[in-house]
Amino acid sequence: MKKKRIGIIGAGPSGLAQIRAFEALKNQGEEIPEIVCFEKQSNWGGMWNYSWRTGVGKYGEPIHGSMYKYLWSNGPKECLEFSDYSFDDHFKKPISSYPPRPVLFDYIQGRIKKSEARDFIRFDTTARWVSFDEKTKKFTVILDDLKIDKTYSEEFDYLVVASGHFSTPNMPYFKGIENFPGTAIHAHDFRGADQFKGQNILLIGSSYSAEDIGVQCHKHGANSVTLSYRSNPIGVAWPEGIKELPLVTHFEEDTAYFKDGTSEKFDAVIMCTGYQHKFPFLPDELRLKTKNNLYPDHLYKGVFFNNLPQLIYLGMQDQYYTFNMFDAQAWVARDYMIGRFKLPSEAKRRIDIDKWLKKNDKLETGFDDVDFQSDYIKDLLSLSDYPAFDVDKVGEMFKQWLRDKEEGILTYRDKTFQSVVTGTMAAEHHTEWMDELDDSKERYLYEPEEEELIPDKL
Amino acid sequence: MKKKRIGIIGAGPSGLAQIRAFEALKNQGEEIPEIVCFEKQSNWGGMWNYSWRTGVGKYGEPIHGSMYKYLWSNGPKECLEFSDYSFDDHFKKPISSYPPRPVLFDYIQGRIKKSEARDFIRFDTTARWVSFDEKTKKFTVILDDLKIDKTYSEEFDYLVVASGHFSTPNMPYFKGIENFPGTAIHAHDFRGADQFKGQNILLIGSSYSAEDIGVQCHKHGANSVTLSYRSNPIGVAWPEGIKELPLVTHFEEDTAYFKDGTSEKFDAVIMCTGYQHKFPFLPDELRLKTKNNLYPDHLYKGVFFNNLPQLIYLGMQDQYYTFNMFDAQAWVARDYMIGRFKLPSEAKRRIDIDKWLKKNDKLETGFDDVDFQSDYIKDLLSLSDYPAFDVDKVGEMFKQWLRDKEEGILTYRDKTFQSVVTGTMAAEHHTEWMDELDDSKERYLYEPEEEELIPDKL
Repeated sequence: MKKKRIGIIGAGPSGLAQIRAFEALKNQGEEIPEIVCFEKQSNWGGMWNYSWRTGVGKYGEPIHGSMYKYLWSNGPKECLEFSDYSFDDHFKKPISSYPPRPVLFDYIQGRIKKSEARDFIRFDTTARWVSFDEKTKKFTVILDDLKIDKTYSEEFDYLVVASGHFSTPNMPYFKGIENFPGTAIHAHDFRGADQFKGQNILLIGSSYSAEDIGVQCHKHGANSVTLSYRSNPIGVAWPEGIKELPLVTHFEEDTAYFKDGTSEKFDAVIMCTGYQHKFPFLPDELRLKTKNNLYPDHLYKGVFFNNLPQLIYLGMQDQYYTFNMFDAQAWVARDYMIGRFKLPSEAKRRIDIDKWLKKNDKLETGFDDVDFQSDYIKDLLSLSDYPAFDVDKVGEMFKQWLRDKEEGILTYRDKTFQSVVTGTMAAEHHTEWMDELDDSKERYLYEPEEEELIPDKL
Repeated sequence: MKKKRIGIIGAGPSGLAQIRAFEALKNQGEEIPEIVCFEKQSNWGGMWNYSWRTGVGKYGEPIHGSMYKYLWSNGPKECLEFSDYSFDDHFKKPISSYPPRPVLFDYIQGRIKKSEARDFIRFDTTARWVSFDEKTKKFTVILDDLKIDKTYSEEFDYLVVASGHFSTPNMPYFKGIENFPGTAIHAHDFRGADQFKGQNILLIGSSYSAEDIGVQCHKHGANSVTLSYRSNPIGVAWPEGIKELPLVTHFEEDTAYFKDGTSEKFDAVIMCTGYQHKFPFLPDELRLKTKNNLYPDHLYKGVFFNNLPQLIYLGMQDQYYTFNMFDAQAWVARDYMIGRFKLPSEAKRRIDIDKWLKKNDKLETGFDDVDFQSDYIKDLLSLSDYPAFDVDKVGEMFKQWLRDKEEGILTYRDKTFQSVVTGTMAAEHHTEWMDELDDSKERYLYEPEEEELIPDKL
């Protein structure tokens, strides 16, 4: 019998998790299907593959990454650790709980670098259009090899959509913004705080982007940072130089007016107004339509498109859990594709989805959210042989992290946590986060001599 | 017999010219085919439809427009005048030769606003994928209605690609640019000089974007403007505050190093490095692959895709002539589609294309270029009933414009030209261009009282 063919769109953390899941099977001596992964960037890593470019890339495709310079993990690394490849495995020594982007990117790559994963991936290749043939039950994917400007098509038995959902900005219009004289960009196009030194910055939004970009601009020398929220303020204990105001009503030249009647002049506006789930390569009937939430509708076990479970979506949830969730999803998806995990009927799947949606509707606090996603992870872990880990302990770490942020938005990254994979306690970083302006891997992994640690003695 | 169906991709100046061409026919009492025009923006005008947004638009599609605030025509309006709708028809009085964007946008719209053009256009709709059936000889176009997030497909007998080629940035990599701390964008994302006041700006490139953005930044208060050229400097008489240097070799933080061994610190880099012809919705065999030049290969009469002339490309040339060229092209395309203009065999078309390519290869100076495109326009005008105009005179105006720019890059926009359509001499603008910081239509059309013209007397 001809081998089944599996297409994976995207070689970011989710797509790589899917490849890794099949490799794990191969390492057990099993035969695996034919796998082809399409990645529009020139390298793997998805979001973690930083680009200095904004707008569109060298081949004119929208830039995938929303990462910026000086980005440090905004959650403890112990909450995202692969359970089959620990931080100890990779770094051979304890590191801190909040590493910068290059260090996390290094970690993601470590697991797959020694494998044949790269052979499965066609880089600089974007999926243009997907169709599904009801008779043959196969997907046809039209691909565009950007490097040589050539289109072609291939057939697949299963299609894994792992293209992420933090790439396409959601950017509302505010009256008068078209006449704002300074920089007015979406967080997606923010590449670091350097250019905002000494400036008065307005960030519209109250989620992770606003919080993190605000804190970075403060750290790197912005004159003032104002966060404008639609419904509720972030509400942590802000240091002097950062404040929260209600939503902008409109702009007049460089002045922003707020709902509470106040107004202020700004040098730059950064819209931290979230992202859209966007799948331009999928036809209507295959397209996941959802806002960013913890349990998007139409996905059984959060991954199988209920109308057509041969279509699999990875990582489409709003995320507390990240890498480890993608893994848990990919392992279940793999087992379905090789016939190890059987799906119940569409109607039964619908009932299961509805059960989760109902639970999701009742969530109120951040702690509720964490518990909900922990339950989801446990459910996934029960369905495959992905190495189990202590989900409850990770849940507790997430809650501690939420408390830490509330208490000290500038200091929470100095805290340490214990790995549930290895039991290793994280190291304290050689420099407090607020004093550390260099986010390179070299600087991060550098071990100062003892004297250097006590500058007063020199 | 069923009416032929014509699909037009893009409702910018070229797409609108195509609609207008059919309307002209209808006004002569002829029956016209069924026309559907797809426009991904919410309004018509293509490039002339200014957006404050950069990167992607509200539905996550790459932003089409490359226009910026304070953009004034960089060529005399008499060189782009529609020969069937004059500036006098529209403004009812003489205006200056170099109007700002809102005034030209107003003019483009004037011709079609009173017609039923809008009924032909589906806004917020993007073409996702085109295929051609060799048996039925029809195109199937898969469309995405962005507003309601819904895909569908339609069949067409002819497909007119009028999607422009100044939308997809070409942005080379320069070593070290990823560590440049300031703004680093492509000209496509430049939205006005305000945010660069007092700054030292580096523009990489030596074509229209570099010239015009450089001059605007100078006019609106940049501290210094440096243009960096690959092959040849623009070489006009630059005022103090603007200079040209050879190509950047690399960056180290905020310092740019140049081929001549010099180096300088900059606050911002704007890459004026041109655009790519990009047709992500077309398969390989229908895709025009060309650089920006005066006669792209594979297009008979500059419009008919030679392998499949049912596929028509408008406005794909590098442009001296613009609106009037699109018109001349659209009229010929129309006549082909209604069977009035018969194409010779593919081989004969190939000979004609090669003749033009050979001529194109021999062009050396800007004047040569103008003559070449004038010849092309004359050829087109001989093929349809688009109202003829004195092309030689327009050619002369282009040459005068080239001389004017060389002599006074800050003053050439104060010159006036005579319309070849109406014979009207352009008015002198009430304010010299360098002193005019307001580019609104209201300000432009405003007629000052006589005393106001002599401020010394007040």
